[in-house]
Amino acid sequence: MPIITLLTDFRDVYPAAMKAVILTIAPQTNIVDITHAIPPQNIKWGAAALSFTAPSFPDNTVHVAVVDPGVGSERRSLAIQATGKKTQYLVGPDNGLLIPAAKTIGSFEVFEIFSKSTEKPSPTFHGRDIFAPVGAKLSLGEDIHEMGVPITDFIELPTKAPAIKNNILTGEIIFIDSFGNIITNIPEEIALNFVNYGETVFLEDRTLPVSFCTTKLCSGETVFLEDRTLPFVHTYADVNPGEPLLLIGSHGFLEISLNKSSAKDYFNIDTEDIIQIIK
Amino acid sequence: MPIITLLTDFRDVYPAAMKAVILTIAPQTNIVDITHAIPPQNIKWGAAALSFTAPSFPDNTVHVAVVDPGVGSERRSLAIQATGKKTQYLVGPDNGLLIPAAKTIGSFEVFEIFSKSTEKPSPTFHGRDIFAPVGAKLSLGEDIHEMGVPITDFIELPTKAPAIKNNILTGEIIFIDSFGNIITNIPEEIALNFVNYGETVFLEDRTLPVSFCTTKLCSGETVFLEDRTLPFVHTYADVNPGEPLLLIGSHGFLEISLNKSSAKDYFNIDTEDIIQIIK
Amino acid sequence: MPIITLLTDFRDVYPAAMKAVILTIAPQTNIVDITHAIPPQNIKWGAAALSFTAPSFPDNTVHVAVVDPGVGSERRSLAIQATGKKTQYLVGPDNGLLIPAAKTIGSFEVFEIFSKSTEKPSPTFHGRDIFAPVGAKLSLGEDIHEMGVPITDFIELPTKAPAIKNNILTGEIIFIDSFGNIITNIPEEIALNFVNYGETVFLEDRTLPVSFCTTKLCSGETVFLEDRTLPFVHTYADVNPGEPLLLIGSHGFLEISLNKSSAKDYFNIDTEDIIQIIK
Repeated sequence: MPIITLLTDFRDVYPAAMKAVILTIAPQTNIVDITHAIPPQNIKWGAAALSFTAPSFPDNTVHVAVVDPGVGSERRSLAIQATGKKTQYLVGPDNGLLIPAAKTIGSFEVFEIFSKSTEKPSPTFHGRDIFAPVGAKLSLGEDIHEMGVPITDFIELPTKAPAIKNNILTGEIIFIDSFGNIITNIPEEIALNFVNYGETVFLEDRTLPVSFCTTKLCSGETVFLEDRTLPFVHTYADVNPGEPLLLIGSHGFLEISLNKSSAKDYFNIDTEDIIQIIK
Repeated sequence: MPIITLLTDFRDVYPAAMKAVILTIAPQTNIVDITHAIPPQNIKWGAAALSFTAPSFPDNTVHVAVVDPGVGSERRSLAIQATGKKTQYLVGPDNGLLIPAAKTIGSFEVFEIFSKSTEKPSPTFHGRDIFAPVGAKLSLGEDIHEMGVPITDFIELPTKAPAIKNNILTGEIIFIDSFGNIITNIPEEIALNFVNYGETVFLEDRTLPVSFCTTKLCSGETVFLEDRTLPFVHTYADVNPGEPLLLIGSHGFLEISLNKSSAKDYFNIDTEDIIQIIK
Repeated sequence: MPIITLLTDFRDVYPAAMKAVILTIAPQTNIVDITHAIPPQNIKWGAAALSFTAPSFPDNTVHVAVVDPGVGSERRSLAIQATGKKTQYLVGPDNGLLIPAAKTIGSFEVFEIFSKSTEKPSPTFHGRDIFAPVGAKLSLGEDIHEMGVPITDFIELPTKAPAIKNNILTGEIIFIDSFGNIITNIPEEIALNFVNYGETVFLEDRTLPVSFCTTKLCSGETVFLEDRTLPFVHTYADVNPGEPLLLIGSHGFLEISLNKSSAKDYFNIDTEDIIQIIK
C-alpha cells in the first residue's frame, strides 16, 4: 500500500479536500497526516517539522507539504526525489519548505512541475489542485522525470548555521513544539564537542549559561534578553518539575526545555530566534 | 477499499468511538476525517464544510456527519443517496446539516432510518450508536431502501440566497476558515456577472465597497458596521501583506480575505452574517 | 488489516514520528488516532479517555498510549494482554495510564517489556523508540510472552471509588470533554440505585443538589464550592439551552452538562475533582 503524508498549515476542511483528490487518483493509498498545526504561513517551522519526520517513513513514501503564502503568484511548484538509505519524494511550493527534509534524507534532485490538467487550478489552493494530484501520481509509480524539468536554482530559507567563536556556541531556534520545548539547529555532535572540549562522551553535572536574542539584536552588540545557567542533562526528569534544562532532544538537536512545563512560556520566547551557549 | 468520511463538532475521544464501531462492522474501511473542528453545535458551518468537501470524494463514499444539538430528542435520523457525476451517501441528523452537500452532489433521495439494533442507543451519542453503524453498513453495500423509509419533509436550514437589488449584491457568510478567510454563499458566476455588468471575464484593477451587517440590522434600514473598498483580485499575493481583498475562493464562492493575515480579525466579524457588495 | 490505535498528549509531529516507525515495521497496519488532545502530562485524563474508547475496538487491536512525564527515568515500559469479549493489547509507560482500560476490557496480564533494539532509545521519546515498535510487533502477531516478563507490581493511579454515606453520593471527576461535559467515575447502576432508592428504573422529574469541591477541601469539613439543584434527565435537550443537568453519559457514567453550552465554564470547574450528589 503506497504511503502519502500531508504536512500543511491548514485547519478545517482543506486537508480533507486534498485527500479526496488523492483517493480519487490513487484509491489504495495510505494517507498519513504529519501535522496540520504549523503556524499559518510559517515556512521555517514547516520545514523543520518536515525534516524531523519525513526521513523515517518507509521507502518510496511521498510527502506532500503545503505552507504556501505565495500561492497563485509566480512561485514555482516542485517535486523532489531524495535518496539516502531510502528513496522518498517531496512535493510542494518552491519557497524553501522542502529542502531541509531533502538534505536530511540524502542526495536529491529537484524538478519544477507543470500541471498537465486541462482544468485551471484554483489560484488559492494549489495543495488540492497541483500538489495532491502530483503526489498521488508519484505514489502510483509515475516517473518524476516525466512530470517536470530539473532545476538547480530552487529557493532555500536563510539559515544561521551553528558556529563557535570565543567559547560561545551560537545557533538558531527552528521549532517550538506543543510542550513548549525550544528546538535549535545545533546537532548532537557539535553540542557535545563544544560542551566537552572535544569529547563526545556525555559528562554529568555540567551546567552552562544560555542566552536568547533576536537576529537584529544579536547582529550588533549582543544584548542578552535572558541569561540563565542551565544543567545539561539526559532527560526532563533529571531536574525538578518546573525547572529549565538543556538536552539533546529526540530529533537529535540541542533543546531547551522544562520538566513538566513549557520553556516557551518560562523564557517568554516569541520573536527571539538566536540562542547562545557559553562555556 | 470502501471509504467513510467523518465530519463532527467532536473533539477528544468521540470520533475514535465512532471509528471503533465502524471498524468492528466493516474492518476494511478507509476512514477519512473531513474535520472535527466545527464550532460546537454550529449546524450552519458544518453544512458548509460538508458541502465544500464531500462532493469531491470517490464514487460510493459514505459521509457520516454529526453536528447534533438535538440528540436524544424527537429529531429524526437520516440517510441520503445523492447522485450526480458520482453516487454518494450521507448519514446524520435531520437538522439541515446534510442537505447542502446533497444538493451540491446532484439529485438526492432522503430516508428516515430506523435502528434495528436490539441495544438501546445512548440518548446523547447517536454518532456512535446510530450513524456510525448505518454508515458502515452502507459502505458494505447494504441497500439504503432496506434501512429506512423515504421522506420529503426533511429539515432545511434557513438561507439567504444571493440577491442583486439597486446595484447591491447581498449574500450570506457561511463559513470562516482557520486562516480567517470569510466565505460567502455567492457563487463565482453571480459575483463576476455583478462586478462586470454581465461579463464573466475577469476584469483587472477593479475595487468594490463591501459592508457587513447582522441579519437583524440588515432587515430594516441598513446600518453598515464596516464599509471598506476592497480590490477584487485573483489571489492573496496580489495585494500587500496585511491588506484586505475580495476573490473567488477555492470552493467557488466569493471570499473576503487578507494577504497573510485574518479577515475575521481585521473586520472583527463575529455575529455579522450578511455581506453586501456595492457597485 | 491489523489495527493500532494511538493516544498521546503529543501535538505537532510526534504522533507522525510514531506512525513512521509502525509503518516501517508493519506496513499493512491501519493506524487510528484515539486522541492526541490529552492535556500535557495529565495521566488521569489519558487513562479515562483510553478506558472509554479502547474496549470497543475489534479483536486483537493494539493500543499504544503515551502520556509520559517520567520518560527517560527509571519508570518501566509495559505491554498488557487484556481479555474479555475480545482480546486487546495495551502498550505504554508504567504510570497508571493503561490500567483502567485493561480493567474495563476484562482480565489482564502485565509484562515489563525490554527493548531488544541495538540502537539506544532517545531518553525523551519512548513513544517512538520503544512503544511504537513493540505495538507494531504485537500487531504482527508476535507473542507478548517473548517481549517481556510478567509483573504484578505495576503502578495504579490513586482513585476515589464512588461511595454513599449519609444520603450523599461522592465520586471523582475523571474527564472533562471538549463540550465542557464533566464526566464522573460514578457508573449508571450506582447513580440510578442511589437516586431511586434501589430502583434501576429511570424516574422522571427528579432533581438533586450537586456540589463540587477539591480533594483537599473535601477531606476535612466539606466546603461546597458550588451547590445547585439539577434535574436528572435523559438527554441535553430535556432542559432549555444554557441550563445545567445531570445525565448518564455515553460512556455509562454520571455526567454534569449544560444543554448547548459548557458545564466546565458554567461551574468554573478547574482544580475541583470531587463531586457530591445529595438526596
